[in-house]
Amino acid sequence: MKEMHDFCAGLYPILRSITGDGLRRTLAEIGRHVPLTTTEISSGRACFDWTIPREWNLRDAYVANERGERVIDVARHNLHVVNYSVPVRASMTLDELKPRLHSLPDRPDWIPYRTSYYKDDWGFCLTHRQKESLPPGRYEVVIDSTLQPGGMTLGEVVLPGTSDETVLISTHTCHPSLANDNLSGMAVAVWLAKHLASLPQRRYTYRFVFVPGTIGAIAWLAHNEPQLVRIRHGLVLSGVGDAGQIHYKRSRQETAEIDQVMQYVLESSGEPHTIMPFIPYGYDERQYCSPGFDLPVGCLMRTPFGKYPQYHTSADNLELLSPEALGDSLAKCIAAVEILEGNRRYVNLNPKCEPLLGKRGLYSTTGGENETKQFQMALLWVLSYSDGKHALLDIAKRAEIPFRTIKAAADALEKVELLRPAQ
Amino acid sequence: MKEMHDFCAGLYPILRSITGDGLRRTLAEIGRHVPLTTTEISSGRACFDWTIPREWNLRDAYVANERGERVIDVARHNLHVVNYSVPVRASMTLDELKPRLHSLPDRPDWIPYRTSYYKDDWGFCLTHRQKESLPPGRYEVVIDSTLQPGGMTLGEVVLPGTSDETVLISTHTCHPSLANDNLSGMAVAVWLAKHLASLPQRRYTYRFVFVPGTIGAIAWLAHNEPQLVRIRHGLVLSGVGDAGQIHYKRSRQETAEIDQVMQYVLESSGEPHTIMPFIPYGYDERQYCSPGFDLPVGCLMRTPFGKYPQYHTSADNLELLSPEALGDSLAKCIAAVEILEGNRRYVNLNPKCEPLLGKRGLYSTTGGENETKQFQMALLWVLSYSDGKHALLDIAKRAEIPFRTIKAAADALEKVELLRPAQ
Amino acid sequence: MKEMHDFCAGLYPILRSITGDGLRRTLAEIGRHVPLTTTEISSGRACFDWTIPREWNLRDAYVANERGERVIDVARHNLHVVNYSVPVRASMTLDELKPRLHSLPDRPDWIPYRTSYYKDDWGFCLTHRQKESLPPGRYEVVIDSTLQPGGMTLGEVVLPGTSDETVLISTHTCHPSLANDNLSGMAVAVWLAKHLASLPQRRYTYRFVFVPGTIGAIAWLAHNEPQLVRIRHGLVLSGVGDAGQIHYKRSRQETAEIDQVMQYVLESSGEPHTIMPFIPYGYDERQYCSPGFDLPVGCLMRTPFGKYPQYHTSADNLELLSPEALGDSLAKCIAAVEILEGNRRYVNLNPKCEPLLGKRGLYSTTGGENETKQFQMALLWVLSYSDGKHALLDIAKRAEIPFRTIKAAADALEKVELLRPAQ
Repeated sequence: MKEMHDFCAGLYPILRSITGDGLRRTLAEIGRHVPLTTTEISSGRACFDWTIPREWNLRDAYVANERGERVIDVARHNLHVVNYSVPVRASMTLDELKPRLHSLPDRPDWIPYRTSYYKDDWGFCLTHRQKESLPPGRYEVVIDSTLQPGGMTLGEVVLPGTSDETVLISTHTCHPSLANDNLSGMAVAVWLAKHLASLPQRRYTYRFVFVPGTIGAIAWLAHNEPQLVRIRHGLVLSGVGDAGQIHYKRSRQETAEIDQVMQYVLESSGEPHTIMPFIPYGYDERQYCSPGFDLPVGCLMRTPFGKYPQYHTSADNLELLSPEALGDSLAKCIAAVEILEGNRRYVNLNPKCEPLLGKRGLYSTTGGENETKQFQMALLWVLSYSDGKHALLDIAKRAEIPFRTIKAAADALEKVELLRPAQ
Repeated sequence: MKEMHDFCAGLYPILRSITGDGLRRTLAEIGRHVPLTTTEISSGRACFDWTIPREWNLRDAYVANERGERVIDVARHNLHVVNYSVPVRASMTLDELKPRLHSLPDRPDWIPYRTSYYKDDWGFCLTHRQKESLPPGRYEVVIDSTLQPGGMTLGEVVLPGTSDETVLISTHTCHPSLANDNLSGMAVAVWLAKHLASLPQRRYTYRFVFVPGTIGAIAWLAHNEPQLVRIRHGLVLSGVGDAGQIHYKRSRQETAEIDQVMQYVLESSGEPHTIMPFIPYGYDERQYCSPGFDLPVGCLMRTPFGKYPQYHTSADNLELLSPEALGDSLAKCIAAVEILEGNRRYVNLNPKCEPLLGKRGLYSTTGGENETKQFQMALLWVLSYSDGKHALLDIAKRAEIPFRTIKAAADALEKVELLRPAQ
Repeated sequence: MKEMHDFCAGLYPILRSITGDGLRRTLAEIGRHVPLTTTEISSGRACFDWTIPREWNLRDAYVANERGERVIDVARHNLHVVNYSVPVRASMTLDELKPRLHSLPDRPDWIPYRTSYYKDDWGFCLTHRQKESLPPGRYEVVIDSTLQPGGMTLGEVVLPGTSDETVLISTHTCHPSLANDNLSGMAVAVWLAKHLASLPQRRYTYRFVFVPGTIGAIAWLAHNEPQLVRIRHGLVLSGVGDAGQIHYKRSRQETAEIDQVMQYVLESSGEPHTIMPFIPYGYDERQYCSPGFDLPVGCLMRTPFGKYPQYHTSADNLELLSPEALGDSLAKCIAAVEILEGNRRYVNLNPKCEPLLGKRGLYSTTGGENETKQFQMALLWVLSYSDGKHALLDIAKRAEIPFRTIKAAADALEKVELLRPAQ
């Protein structure tokens, strides 16, 4: 989708971090599309085992040669400065500077992405080609950053449903000038929220959480602990814009409803895809699935992180993002949400022998023919398995009939009072 | 078996329906072989969502041309009249008549089978070849039928066992002049009942139910609801006489004992066969397995309905029935019943270490030899797994020893008081 | 291991049986290596369904020809006499003698092993070649044996652990001059006991049981019934010295921890091996796994009994024993014991979100790199699955990380108080 790609292009130049004004500007942009509220979590506040760090802002960062020429300049690329570098103002030889310079010998034209959130440190990132070509001599090094008490900004869009049972959609917002990781996740989350906001009604309440990776998710969990019991399903969106095959990583529960639904969506798409088991490493599902919460939260990706060479380098840029891939990731989320919304358990109100569907206008009255239509079979499947134990998705899989047809059959049966929702 | 085929030939000419005298005559014939009792369920009586229809009887039905020649005549073939046609006496043109004429363009020499039980309607069935050759002109149309308050006749053979735990065998009796569907089912049920009646004793009580399809099974369930809790196993027999491969369709429970037993019988036969999962469409297992009852009732067929071209046409005639297939279907039922009768759970009365089988005459007393006979292994398997949890069939499958050998071992162990039944 | 082979060579010439002085001398030899205690169970004592037989000792046994030459002499090979033969002193013709002579027509150079513990009988075993070459004539037959009230001797080595939860290692001691069956089992048990005795501490108490086959295991169970509840894991060792592939036969429980551990040890060895399901025939696991006890006791073998031609013949001699195979069997037992000792369940003490491993010295503090070391992954796996339900072996298998690394991670986490044992 071109609109989603344009949205990413607009956010790409902002210098983001886990705190600071870049993060706030990013959330403000999102707020132009969906009803976003933000919360500031103060520096120093404890969140479980973690502490919110001082807020980091950067005015300037460069390395200049003896002629005063800026040979490395954050104004040229946000990745040039190690994210969260402490302030520096110094003059040093190339040999003194070199341990502070990060490059990728294997990918000599790409700038790496480096951070130092939890240790006072500083440095610059540059292409290996440039690093090798720096002539000896003295260099002026300036990092004009501030690390001061402030806050970490969390964004959230809440779309209330008829129930306060909640679907959590989480995406990380902290990476500067990396497109697939994770402007793609923000774009898909925003457009999914727009889609849900446009529906006449929602069964579930949806909470879209836009937070810095790791510490942001941890802070959000700490801040929302009493509400976590309402979370029925969840999805982390990250790296959903490259042209690679779609991947779904299951929640720690492995067989949660979201795991079944995503597997069904991907399998019934008929397209190449991969279902991955849970591992306790990855994106923020690590926190949501930690054993103290064990929330049913999976992760949707295209090519998994670390499996594409551009990951965490300047080559993860807008060209890596495919509008079609963004659109396809969104379509998969919409399909999943459609199933979650409809995937109820029902109780057959005429459970002893088959009801007469004909007198209720639901069945052909001429007997003896060989053919039975899929919808009529769907009616029989729903009646037979609506014992309060089987959800519609269970029935669809068992019957090998599309979920939508099964759902339509359930709706028709509910209308003629042969069925009622189980809860 | 020639006798079973002859039985079918005797019943073939009767004009049956879900009510009426043809049905009564059919049951009377069955009653000449086995101790059948009948019950009349009155027209208008409600059975769950259904109502017993008026009783239908037919004296005559024909279409005559202007010369008074009967071009279609139910006396020539019972399928010529749409079953349950309302009375008609009219003169009409071919064009007026045509919408009432059912034929099979793809099978131009076969007469289709059509019914209209639950909608007042009438019609004739004929070969497509004949339909195409009818000359224009006026026709006299006569259906001399009656639809009056009366009853639907259910037949039942009860063979009491030492326990009132019941095995249900159900077969439908309503089809006129269709051989595989379902004179074959009636024949196998009758001969299975004869076999069981000849046994010196039965563990289970057997109820053989001869009922019209759908409405008959529903009426039987409504009429017998308090006794249904005693049904431990059940089998619907239908389409068991054609030469095709044998098929067993599992009960809705999927892993009921009857499902395990039939699978074992078919697998251990070494013959081609198919085990089908439950689907909520098919024969009367649909009613027995409806979620309000969920009885452990499977269905034995040869070629499944709708999978052979002759299904529900005049080509489902006595030539389609193979005496060998009838005999083989009966043999499979007898094998299943033998396992059901013997498939108990036992308790090992000497569970701590192996008992000395030698001093009880059950074991070779010369040690050190390499070979152990299958019966001696069967003794060890039965002792080891007779913990009240494993039935003999579980043990036979686990040990890969024929059920009969395992049963013989259990009998021998019970005789020397090393074993007792679990219940 | 040469030492183990030498140990077997030392025991090989002793004429053992299920009672008697040969058995006592064998246990005395074992007692030179490990702290063995012995118990005498008196003849006539009832052990469940069995009774301890009279004690058997043999001074001499031979068959001499008319010239007084001993043509069969137990002094030449212990297998020449049927074990437990009653005393005989007689003169008879070859035809009278022949029914008492056991040989193997298929293996004409090997002497078979025969016993008659539970029936008063006598006989000789010899090569088929010799049997065929015996000239007609009269023979003097002498079996100078005694069958008198005495005892059956059980040997046991107990190595106490910090807990009285017990690991049972059982091996049979009754076979005379058969090397693989079962000097090999005694050797591996002795060296495993030496290994465990050398450890600074043991979690489990280990009971090594050296008993005659069948009756000895039964007597031990009868004598120790109150302590059996403490047995958490067990292993029968038998036939563990031939060069064949290693086999593990699962306990009757099939999925006991010992079954999982042995499967893991064999699979992670990368060597050819076979896991066999439980069958109620075999070695003394038959008794330990009888349904009245159902102890989690598996059986380690190399080539299973009856599957090598030398089984229960004079060809099961010291040449059949491979020092490497003995060493490998021991190594597998040591690996299994290492896992049993370490395979605890833990509780994550910081279960809500990930703990900061960096501040506890357990994690790299520079973020953003692609690679994560296996140990750091192990830390995350242990934290994620330490919910009191998953044991470390479960986690190792799930994570596909070696058990030792997972155990090291758990130890490191316990040290920094992020983890505590579940019980």
